Amino acid sequence: MDPSTPADPKALARLFRPRSVVLVGASDRSSWSRTAYDNIAAVGFDGKVHLVSRHGGTVHGQAAATSCRAIGEPVDAALLLLPAQALTEALQDVAAAGIRSAVVLTSGFAELGAEGARLQDELAATAMSLGITVLGPNCMGFMNFAAKTALWAGALRAPIFAGKVSIASQSGAIASMIVHLCYQQGVGVGYLISTGNEACLDVGRVIDFLVDDPGTQVIALFSESIRDPISFRHAAERAFAAGKPVVVLKVGRSETTARVAQSHTGALVGDDRIFEAACRQLGIIRVDSIEELVLTADLMSKLGKLRGSGVGLVSFSGGICEIAADCAAAEEISLPAFAEPTVAALHEVLPSYGTPSNPLDITGAVITDTSLFEKTLAIVGKDPALSLLACVFEVPASVPDKQPIYIKLVESIGRGIASAKIPAIMISHTMKPVTDVSRELIAAANLPYVASGVDLGMRAIARAIAWNQKRSRPCIGVAMQPANASTVTSIPASEAEALRHLAAFGVPIVPTVLARTEQEALDAARAFVSSVAMKIASADIAHKSDIGGVVLDVAGEEATLDAYRRIHAAVRQARPDAAVSGIAISPMRRSSLELFVGVKRDPQWGYALAVGLGGVWIEALQDTSLRLLPLDRHEVLEMLGELRAATLLKGYRGMPAVDIELLADVITRIGDAALALGDHLETLEVNPLLARGDKVEALDALVVGKRRSG
Amino acid sequence: MDPSTPADPKALARLFRPRSVVLVGASDRSSWSRTAYDNIAAVGFDGKVHLVSRHGGTVHGQAAATSCRAIGEPVDAALLLLPAQALTEALQDVAAAGIRSAVVLTSGFAELGAEGARLQDELAATAMSLGITVLGPNCMGFMNFAAKTALWAGALRAPIFAGKVSIASQSGAIASMIVHLCYQQGVGVGYLISTGNEACLDVGRVIDFLVDDPGTQVIALFSESIRDPISFRHAAERAFAAGKPVVVLKVGRSETTARVAQSHTGALVGDDRIFEAACRQLGIIRVDSIEELVLTADLMSKLGKLRGSGVGLVSFSGGICEIAADCAAAEEISLPAFAEPTVAALHEVLPSYGTPSNPLDITGAVITDTSLFEKTLAIVGKDPALSLLACVFEVPASVPDKQPIYIKLVESIGRGIASAKIPAIMISHTMKPVTDVSRELIAAANLPYVASGVDLGMRAIARAIAWNQKRSRPCIGVAMQPANASTVTSIPASEAEALRHLAAFGVPIVPTVLARTEQEALDAARAFVSSVAMKIASADIAHKSDIGGVVLDVAGEEATLDAYRRIHAAVRQARPDAAVSGIAISPMRRSSLELFVGVKRDPQWGYALAVGLGGVWIEALQDTSLRLLPLDRHEVLEMLGELRAATLLKGYRGMPAVDIELLADVITRIGDAALALGDHLETLEVNPLLARGDKVEALDALVVGKRRSG
Repeated sequence: MDPSTPADPKALARLFRPRSVVLVGASDRSSWSRTAYDNIAAVGFDGKVHLVSRHGGTVHGQAAATSCRAIGEPVDAALLLLPAQALTEALQDVAAAGIRSAVVLTSGFAELGAEGARLQDELAATAMSLGITVLGPNCMGFMNFAAKTALWAGALRAPIFAGKVSIASQSGAIASMIVHLCYQQGVGVGYLISTGNEACLDVGRVIDFLVDDPGTQVIALFSESIRDPISFRHAAERAFAAGKPVVVLKVGRSETTARVAQSHTGALVGDDRIFEAACRQLGIIRVDSIEELVLTADLMSKLGKLRGSGVGLVSFSGGICEIAADCAAAEEISLPAFAEPTVAALHEVLPSYGTPSNPLDITGAVITDTSLFEKTLAIVGKDPALSLLACVFEVPASVPDKQPIYIKLVESIGRGIASAKIPAIMISHTMKPVTDVSRELIAAANLPYVASGVDLGMRAIARAIAWNQKRSRPCIGVAMQPANASTVTSIPASEAEALRHLAAFGVPIVPTVLARTEQEALDAARAFVSSVAMKIASADIAHKSDIGGVVLDVAGEEATLDAYRRIHAAVRQARPDAAVSGIAISPMRRSSLELFVGVKRDPQWGYALAVGLGGVWIEALQDTSLRLLPLDRHEVLEMLGELRAATLLKGYRGMPAVDIELLADVITRIGDAALALGDHLETLEVNPLLARGDKVEALDALVVGKRRSG
Repeated sequence: MDPSTPADPKALARLFRPRSVVLVGASDRSSWSRTAYDNIAAVGFDGKVHLVSRHGGTVHGQAAATSCRAIGEPVDAALLLLPAQALTEALQDVAAAGIRSAVVLTSGFAELGAEGARLQDELAATAMSLGITVLGPNCMGFMNFAAKTALWAGALRAPIFAGKVSIASQSGAIASMIVHLCYQQGVGVGYLISTGNEACLDVGRVIDFLVDDPGTQVIALFSESIRDPISFRHAAERAFAAGKPVVVLKVGRSETTARVAQSHTGALVGDDRIFEAACRQLGIIRVDSIEELVLTADLMSKLGKLRGSGVGLVSFSGGICEIAADCAAAEEISLPAFAEPTVAALHEVLPSYGTPSNPLDITGAVITDTSLFEKTLAIVGKDPALSLLACVFEVPASVPDKQPIYIKLVESIGRGIASAKIPAIMISHTMKPVTDVSRELIAAANLPYVASGVDLGMRAIARAIAWNQKRSRPCIGVAMQPANASTVTSIPASEAEALRHLAAFGVPIVPTVLARTEQEALDAARAFVSSVAMKIASADIAHKSDIGGVVLDVAGEEATLDAYRRIHAAVRQARPDAAVSGIAISPMRRSSLELFVGVKRDPQWGYALAVGLGGVWIEALQDTSLRLLPLDRHEVLEMLGELRAATLLKGYRGMPAVDIELLADVITRIGDAALALGDHLETLEVNPLLARGDKVEALDALVVGKRRSG
């Protein structure tokens, strides 16, 4: 499928919400066939199930047709359980029967290399020419727990409860693990979609479909590689705009580790760093484990909109309060002090030895007076400084555990949470299964319960807060590239041209005079009050200082003349062939922070901008922050905050604090200037960008086009 | 109890392995009493249980004595369920009955402030004078699952299986959560000991006891504060020497966060950083959550000694291999390439589309040929580059989940692991409970199974490897302080004396000549080939450069005389009272890395040494590494490796790599020189310590004594 083509919503609806299905290649000898057939019944499908077997007869105890055409009635979706060589004919049969949607399980395509990739392209072309929307190949299919339909050939080891978290996974095995963990932790699931090799339907188009599904509140994703970044970006932007969080576990971080040792720009735009940048920018929540994927999605599906960042925490254990406070500090979660009326009201209900502070230890007194949970939650849930209330306690998971005291406590928490004026949840002490026993208690107490444990729970809360904060920003500053592809048609050939190009976009640049004679040099040096920097100006010379083409800190007439002559002599000596246009003279600047801003084309994702402090920060520590272009000022401010050296921007050793808003504005303009060069650009670097107090200025710039223009 | 006194092993044995117990203050009206009484039966105690109630009669359906003396037979341990004011009399009764061990549940002591602390001191004094070893007060007691005894007043919500992990916790509630999680995850427990306020028995003495317990293989600890660091260090060293890992969850990291904003040295020796330093040094494994505490302890209890760091990983899912590889990279776990014979042997058994690399995806083919697990594990388990084999798969936890195929797979893994030549374990895909169904399968297949999930499992593996590596080091370099307390009796009064003191310990210092006349200054400057630094020498002047007492980079006779006169004039002007001994003249050094080495006394833990790179690294980023003194070179090398700026030591911008072994040796000597000043020392700072290639040299030093000697 052409990457820019969105999938047809009607075709996707027929595929993922079929009212009738057919298993093509059904066979009693195939465990895939048996499993897929059983799963259809297991999820409670009440539509028509057809079977097609080349020889007809009875399969799985049901009459099988010899072809799709032979079924003789309309069918919404087909599951193809066939070897690769039989697929083309099968798809023709499927199309002839008027079926427009198919799931292809068959493996042996692009995952096996070049020859497999060719076969896969053929498959995709066949499907497209026949007008069939194909999920797969090399996938497990899908399950739709809300509509109770499934074309899923993997094991279904437990009854999954319908709910608001929908899952997409490129790996079928991981999809099984995710959904099984959802069952174990009491997470309700909408869709489970295994995308496999994504010959036609990539994960972006699946996300896009889920954004429009009214039952889906959160999208959880396992990904190995983003095959179509444009589709993915588009879907992620729609999800963000629709207020549906996308939580992703993407493998491939370790490749970065290897690549870090590579060249400078290589390290800046390594694949995983670009994906990480895209996540930050698109409001995608990236997690590190399957547990975190499932429980972050669960928590976000159970929270309403958060209007601020303050969290109130309530537990009956001082130890849990301490653990939670440490987690909060590690995740930079704010636990604000309670307001005066909250403290006063808590004093009324807590025992004398209790302390009404946040996190709140209501003490073991709750064992003798279970209403203490309800009372304290109701009080804390009204505190004006808070936007989220979390109560830590757990729901029994077994019959011996279901003691009367626990039931009372859980009910008390349910009432307390219900009376809170802000979004409120209950988190288990440690990660704990949700069983039928738990489900009954949860339902009775109407509890928004996340069985993640405090550690994963606090991490999920941090993510939820950050996501809500980002959503409250005026604009997310992402648009499809290229933005202004045709603004400029040629690449600046020299440093001076590069700086002029930046200046045209409002980037302050250091004033520079081109001196073509000794007299012009003297005039220029005199005009700048400070001492000056003198550099050879030649489009032919890239590394000026290496050949003696740069003299810094020149003061006075004598020194200016001397430097002028020395530079010309050195250049004549080293590069007699170079066309020289003169000597560029600029004022020397007072000690400033030096930043590096680089824009580079990523073959998949388009242009990305990296910013970092110069010198050791970037050379030895790779301390940079990365985003896709175009960027807005908010996003750049976030980037600057991510730098390990960020603290230096606040002032250091007598240097005044940098005007960070101005700096962000200038960096945004550099990004715009880069995009304006459109497809011609390979890299653009501003190095250094000087920053000191309210002065930000580009000192040097280098632009490299895809084809050098000279 | 005097901190330096070890607890009496016999008294501890009577306390924690009693053959007869008494509940003092037993009452049908007390839920504590009821629970404690029931727990004794629940753990399977077969010794004698006595009850004491002031009024005698029948309690919990059993005849109660009116006092311990009235029991009339020997009793090993007493559980006191009494209000605070009744404790003294009860302890006297306990002692009179010949009972030497008691657990005190009563709260209302040091946790309530100064008055409570006074009461607690009285309680401790009473117990000591009566010769009674007391656990508590304000604790939950203990359970000993190996010997089936318990004096535990908390809920016991599930049958705990006896095993090799013993637990100590200062919080009773957290102790309950830990042991409940042990049950849920199939972790066998030896002891569960709640230490409470630790009036007599601190957590160090409890660890010490567990080190000697033959059934305990790993010690898991929850701590709020280390009340007796000497006892704790001593116990941790014994545990390490005995090969019993101590895994600790200690709260209080967030206090550090607040304290970081404080003064320089405050930030260096903040409590939590000192504890973190002690952990690194003592081989204590510090974790961040209850889940990690339990599952790291579990994994370590199931592993033998690891002889190296290479890990081999086997899974039937490519996705899991990718997730595990990312975890490995994040945790710096080495997944070495398989040796040639391993690759060849794997080619024989894997399907044609399988790839014999590490981590190993044996593919879904294992579903049709379950022996693939056994065969591949046996092959990988012989690879010479590996020290640990991990197979990722999970044990069913419910009856519907216990399908024949799963049983076969688990059995195949069991056989494969049994035939491995290196320590091998099985880790679940995600965190998963261990139920009776699981237990049966685990026992049948004899599986070393850790139900942690890949994420926590890989973190635990990283910790296990680091711990084993540290144990293989020649010496761990920790001894009780102070080492050479009486070597030196006075604190160096000036920079020159401080440097001489360092030099006496073999620290290279910059050559310095004290010039008392202009002629001596000229002679000195001439003697150094390079330009020189000139500084006023006066014990009365701490901040020399602030008053014009320092001139740097002086070259030539004229400049030397000028600087000599300027310094004297400036000092006379600013500090006419100061006793001046002359001007110190040293050669200027070529551009070098500047390090900071500081030693500071911590009121609890003794002297600690911090090392960091100077300038922005320490001032803006607090990039330091900390350890307790004394230190050996291995430990210092580890410290240098922890610095974010460590990469600069490998050479940067044409500066040669620093001889890191030499640097570590010099830092070790600075620590020795500091310790030699014994109790007189408050702080010692070497700043800067220059390092460039094979040259390491202290340029400036400052020593502050507890009482200034001049």
